[in-house]
Amino acid sequence: MTVDLNADIGEGFGIWRIGDDQAMLGMVTSANLACGFHAGDPAGLLEVCKLAAEAGAHVGAQVSYRDLHGFGRRFIDVSFEDLFADVIYQIGALQAVAAVAGTRVSYVKPHGALYNTVFSHTQQARAVTAAVLAVDPGLPVLGQPGSELFRQAEMVGLRTVAEVFADRAYKADGTLAPRREPGAVLHEPAIIAERAVRMVKEGVVQADDGTIVDVRVDSICLHGDSPGAPHIAAAVWEQLRRNHIDLQPFA
Amino acid sequence: MTVDLNADIGEGFGIWRIGDDQAMLGMVTSANLACGFHAGDPAGLLEVCKLAAEAGAHVGAQVSYRDLHGFGRRFIDVSFEDLFADVIYQIGALQAVAAVAGTRVSYVKPHGALYNTVFSHTQQARAVTAAVLAVDPGLPVLGQPGSELFRQAEMVGLRTVAEVFADRAYKADGTLAPRREPGAVLHEPAIIAERAVRMVKEGVVQADDGTIVDVRVDSICLHGDSPGAPHIAAAVWEQLRRNHIDLQPFA
Amino acid sequence: MTVDLNADIGEGFGIWRIGDDQAMLGMVTSANLACGFHAGDPAGLLEVCKLAAEAGAHVGAQVSYRDLHGFGRRFIDVSFEDLFADVIYQIGALQAVAAVAGTRVSYVKPHGALYNTVFSHTQQARAVTAAVLAVDPGLPVLGQPGSELFRQAEMVGLRTVAEVFADRAYKADGTLAPRREPGAVLHEPAIIAERAVRMVKEGVVQADDGTIVDVRVDSICLHGDSPGAPHIAAAVWEQLRRNHIDLQPFA
Amino acid sequence: MTVDLNADIGEGFGIWRIGDDQAMLGMVTSANLACGFHAGDPAGLLEVCKLAAEAGAHVGAQVSYRDLHGFGRRFIDVSFEDLFADVIYQIGALQAVAAVAGTRVSYVKPHGALYNTVFSHTQQARAVTAAVLAVDPGLPVLGQPGSELFRQAEMVGLRTVAEVFADRAYKADGTLAPRREPGAVLHEPAIIAERAVRMVKEGVVQADDGTIVDVRVDSICLHGDSPGAPHIAAAVWEQLRRNHIDLQPFA
Repeated sequence: MTVDLNADIGEGFGIWRIGDDQAMLGMVTSANLACGFHAGDPAGLLEVCKLAAEAGAHVGAQVSYRDLHGFGRRFIDVSFEDLFADVIYQIGALQAVAAVAGTRVSYVKPHGALYNTVFSHTQQARAVTAAVLAVDPGLPVLGQPGSELFRQAEMVGLRTVAEVFADRAYKADGTLAPRREPGAVLHEPAIIAERAVRMVKEGVVQADDGTIVDVRVDSICLHGDSPGAPHIAAAVWEQLRRNHIDLQPFA
Repeated sequence: MTVDLNADIGEGFGIWRIGDDQAMLGMVTSANLACGFHAGDPAGLLEVCKLAAEAGAHVGAQVSYRDLHGFGRRFIDVSFEDLFADVIYQIGALQAVAAVAGTRVSYVKPHGALYNTVFSHTQQARAVTAAVLAVDPGLPVLGQPGSELFRQAEMVGLRTVAEVFADRAYKADGTLAPRREPGAVLHEPAIIAERAVRMVKEGVVQADDGTIVDVRVDSICLHGDSPGAPHIAAAVWEQLRRNHIDLQPFA
Repeated sequence: MTVDLNADIGEGFGIWRIGDDQAMLGMVTSANLACGFHAGDPAGLLEVCKLAAEAGAHVGAQVSYRDLHGFGRRFIDVSFEDLFADVIYQIGALQAVAAVAGTRVSYVKPHGALYNTVFSHTQQARAVTAAVLAVDPGLPVLGQPGSELFRQAEMVGLRTVAEVFADRAYKADGTLAPRREPGAVLHEPAIIAERAVRMVKEGVVQADDGTIVDVRVDSICLHGDSPGAPHIAAAVWEQLRRNHIDLQPFA
Repeated sequence: MTVDLNADIGEGFGIWRIGDDQAMLGMVTSANLACGFHAGDPAGLLEVCKLAAEAGAHVGAQVSYRDLHGFGRRFIDVSFEDLFADVIYQIGALQAVAAVAGTRVSYVKPHGALYNTVFSHTQQARAVTAAVLAVDPGLPVLGQPGSELFRQAEMVGLRTVAEVFADRAYKADGTLAPRREPGAVLHEPAIIAERAVRMVKEGVVQADDGTIVDVRVDSICLHGDSPGAPHIAAAVWEQLRRNHIDLQPFA
């Protein structure tokens, strides 16, 4: 029994840094790296790619809107043509940096507002998947089942990798409870870790109304950039290992 | 008898455009493309890569300082680590865009202030050549003989491609006369075209003191972004063909 | 009988330029100047402010989303706090530049996607008007009657200045016909000029279904950045003068 | 007996933050605020301006090269025209933000590489002082005696405010020992605090060769962005107060 752990790593820019990359790289098997549009200057990326390679973590291109100021967390109504080319540019830039660091881009994951948008925005989802397909049809797309992103990816034959969030409440239909709802984000490490184990072992999660919902779990998404997050990540990591679940890159 | 003609193409950003790319692509055999740091948004680059591919021109990565405001024309005292990674990032980004357009990056040429700086700045020249080597040791570097860039490139085994400027005055030592000197830039199309032909046929140019100087000519650099420039480029192009000099990419 | 003519001026950035600022400044009485977020580098703005001052045109701050790549033409889901501060920052920057050029910021007009958004987006409209109010309650806001921007501006006591578009089709309810509708944009200079005169003289426009609609005309918006636009602007300008309508800044 | 304490505050951008602004604002009397070119997004600046106003600290415009990636720490060979306008733009932007926060820009201090450059670079020093003069001849310039910046400022009648660095070694000629020299930066809080007190009380500092050198002390510069720095700042602050030296803005 195996599972992949993914997290955002290397979200700095120039002098600025966020989170404890070293700590997170000791746990994750897939490192989502910014590509310069919402974070990630080239020298910083090169360094993080080397750290990921040393840690044995796979590297993914976390493609984003061009928005350093907003850290890619604001929806931008970008055209198909621009988003298509922006994603190609970002993947290519990280591919070169990763190769120099002795590793390679193994998958693509949209970041922030783009991640949320491609859950339902057909045109932007299509731009992302068309870009991935154009760069390398062998690159999997990491995201959420039921999303427009996955529909488009499957339509063109891209491999989809489904991630779950052990620290988020789910609805009975298998979607995430919106963050604004009370209880949408869990904070208790032990509970989150138990949910993670159950997701992997049984392929289910208990929704906020008590229903037991099937979930597809190719990867568990951990967070490292909020207070308490590394502690939660560590709890999940430990509980998975205690349950003899092998942590391995999905690829 | 053959020669390569290179020019900067696709130097826009978003809504902004410079020069007549279509006209220049009808003449050059090597198109130097901005990579997003001084100009060149991804969608614009993709479009220009397609045009270059259709026109049969090779594509080069014109790597630059990160300076949209100054169009890469201002020296920046960037560290080795940053410049090394910045160049890798830019080449990689253009490689992906070019591949999607059905072509590929065939060479690297520093742009603007970086071009001038690596003539003599050892550390920056070393950062550029180390980056090219790290990305692909088969990528030639386009620049000026006698430059620190070429010294560093030869030291690590990169192929160097020597360009001449038919519209610039040369000194007796084979270097360009500084732009601030009167007569440093020639404007008469017929004269410039004749110089170009002589450079290719005889491998010499007449310096500003009358001396006949040997020049190494792998490529002739044309300009398209100043008034009168396309007219001069056309004159050079026609005179070369009239003299039965084949225009072919150097690669 | 007087009217104001406004147009976007100085929409370059660094080396890049758009439109013929000199020609437009010969006609307009109010120059909408970019403030650096979608266009407008400081040195370019200073130069344009001087030209506007010489031409006797008033200067307005054309505030925008932070989006050089998209020229401010893409909706960004920016928070109230960010947009409020972004607008303050932009107005302040232009105020200093204008003062050095011997003029001053006389009004504020949202640009591009922000202009379209604040027609109906309450929170963003409120952020813009709150920012203007915070900087200077005496600054009028240039825009469209019926917009959320005007509602918010009036609520806090800001003066509103209503502009019309002589080259755009109107619906019977006084709003603009969406650009995607056939006939939404007029191209015939003589017709556009006649509409402009009628708008000023009679305060009406004929809607696309033939209805005669009342319009409030404090200013006519001219365009200078598309092919044919300067020609249309000149036709409007001439026809207004031929009809003895004085061109004067609204302020 | 009084002295001013200045420090860089609010050096974040968007999501990124550096240093402990609250702690530093509890000690300094003059807060040097980034203006958006090397750090400082508008909403962040507005917040910091409010904090500074509450803490009773004066606000200064820390003008910089346009270089988010390099945090303004890399020399850029910017033209007089561009630097002149860039400084005006930055001051104006902060003026508006500060005014909304209930305070105002009381002085100007160049940041990072620009600070170092204007020590000796006549043209850039002149661009900065000309910009300050153009915006408001009443704005003092904070910097180092003996610098080209001060020479230019005095020439045009700007008030100069001299700062000292209690944590840096001085040469016998009153200039700072270059950072690359061993012992150039002091780390022992007690020693640094003692130097600060002596600088204020006696107007002297002991140079690295033992010489006692006169120093002009209008302000002491504290650092908050390196490990240990807040501790040193606190030691200086306490030792000054223990010696009954009043901390007051220089203005």
